[in-house]
Amino acid sequence: MSFNKEQAVKIAESICKNDDERSLISSFVEVCSFLSEYPAELSWRTSKLSPVKPDAKTEDGLKLLASRYFEAYRRSDFPVAPSTVPDEMVSLIMEKAYGYSPAECQKIKLEHQHAMCAENCVGNLLERYLDSKLRQSDWSWCCGEFVKAIDFLGRNKNNEWVALQIKNRDNSENSSSSAIRDGTRIQKWFRSFSKDTRKGRPSFTNWENLPSLMKSYNLNENDFKKFVAKYIENEKINL
Amino acid sequence: MSFNKEQAVKIAESICKNDDERSLISSFVEVCSFLSEYPAELSWRTSKLSPVKPDAKTEDGLKLLASRYFEAYRRSDFPVAPSTVPDEMVSLIMEKAYGYSPAECQKIKLEHQHAMCAENCVGNLLERYLDSKLRQSDWSWCCGEFVKAIDFLGRNKNNEWVALQIKNRDNSENSSSSAIRDGTRIQKWFRSFSKDTRKGRPSFTNWENLPSLMKSYNLNENDFKKFVAKYIENEKINL
Repeated sequence: MSFNKEQAVKIAESICKNDDERSLISSFVEVCSFLSEYPAELSWRTSKLSPVKPDAKTEDGLKLLASRYFEAYRRSDFPVAPSTVPDEMVSLIMEKAYGYSPAECQKIKLEHQHAMCAENCVGNLLERYLDSKLRQSDWSWCCGEFVKAIDFLGRNKNNEWVALQIKNRDNSENSSSSAIRDGTRIQKWFRSFSKDTRKGRPSFTNWENLPSLMKSYNLNENDFKKFVAKYIENEKINL
Repeated sequence: MSFNKEQAVKIAESICKNDDERSLISSFVEVCSFLSEYPAELSWRTSKLSPVKPDAKTEDGLKLLASRYFEAYRRSDFPVAPSTVPDEMVSLIMEKAYGYSPAECQKIKLEHQHAMCAENCVGNLLERYLDSKLRQSDWSWCCGEFVKAIDFLGRNKNNEWVALQIKNRDNSENSSSSAIRDGTRIQKWFRSFSKDTRKGRPSFTNWENLPSLMKSYNLNENDFKKFVAKYIENEKINL
């Protein structure tokens, strides 16, 4: 059996709820096409309730993939409320080491949790920003995190796959996989530097080093900031 | 060749600088004895400068191990100054999502970094506290992190090894290894709960569930707090 593009489109159409979601269908189909060629690149945890890994060459497989893809797209990346209880020992250390008062430590405890929640969503917002600028292009967003170590898929002039892994910072943990099976390398790009070590570097961001095939879309830090501000404000209204 | 206990003691003695360090020698020797029985449990990264993994059955091996062990003991666990540059996008998200003012975000940025530094040292301080209470006991601290997934080694009534892995929180990442080769299980204990889910739990700490062989040393949260306060104050003076 081979990959059925029309079937993939149909299944995605039946799931999409609005024009915005429908504009993602071609990306979804590209991702499925890639997985039908490289099934080993699927990242999928099975469970008792869903014991089967989806096969992009079957109708059932495409249904599972479409549902995961669009559910992930709909999930909000507004920073969630902290769910963990702060460790009181951290406050004690802050007091003794940095001289904060107990009252300051109480305040910092909550703010620190908010900062962690905010940090946790930057990476997802970065993917959403790139998708928002690339959706009309040949790049396809691997939404739903079911392609191993790949966030965006494109094709070069020879119509060969180009895979891109995105990280928010140079010190973010990398997934171990760094080559697709036939030797196609996964290109990596990170948005920001965590250390101020390179002299003469114009900024702490790395937009000028985007992979060549992503360079012509005017992706930049200022534009990302605007996107984030707008996204958070919209989500806040819809909370 | 078999493990030479007298040699291990001598090598450690030649490295120790004071009585406090000398009181760790018997722990060091126990750790080496364990590694001579289970060499595969050694966790050691080789490099160009030091390409050889130490063998606890040789003099050179013991020298390497002793140097790593006591150097780690001497290293301060005072929270270091932040070395990373904060991501400005986090401040923007804090502003938009939680309504902090730009000035508050600037302040939170530094405090958040201090909180992360403080967090990072709690685990090490916990090991130091346990060692301080157990040094005169049959438990031996695996200082220097060169025993895979094991922080303390003891022996049961049959003189068999008992291995303990310590974590500060129930959500700390666990090392993958969870059994020594011959089937001896590594016992695990964590100090604090990160979530408030168990009703009727007397506290967010877990001292009452210490492994049985560690129960008779009056280890408790209040005592740990006192240890941390004293440790940080001492280190601050010596900075």
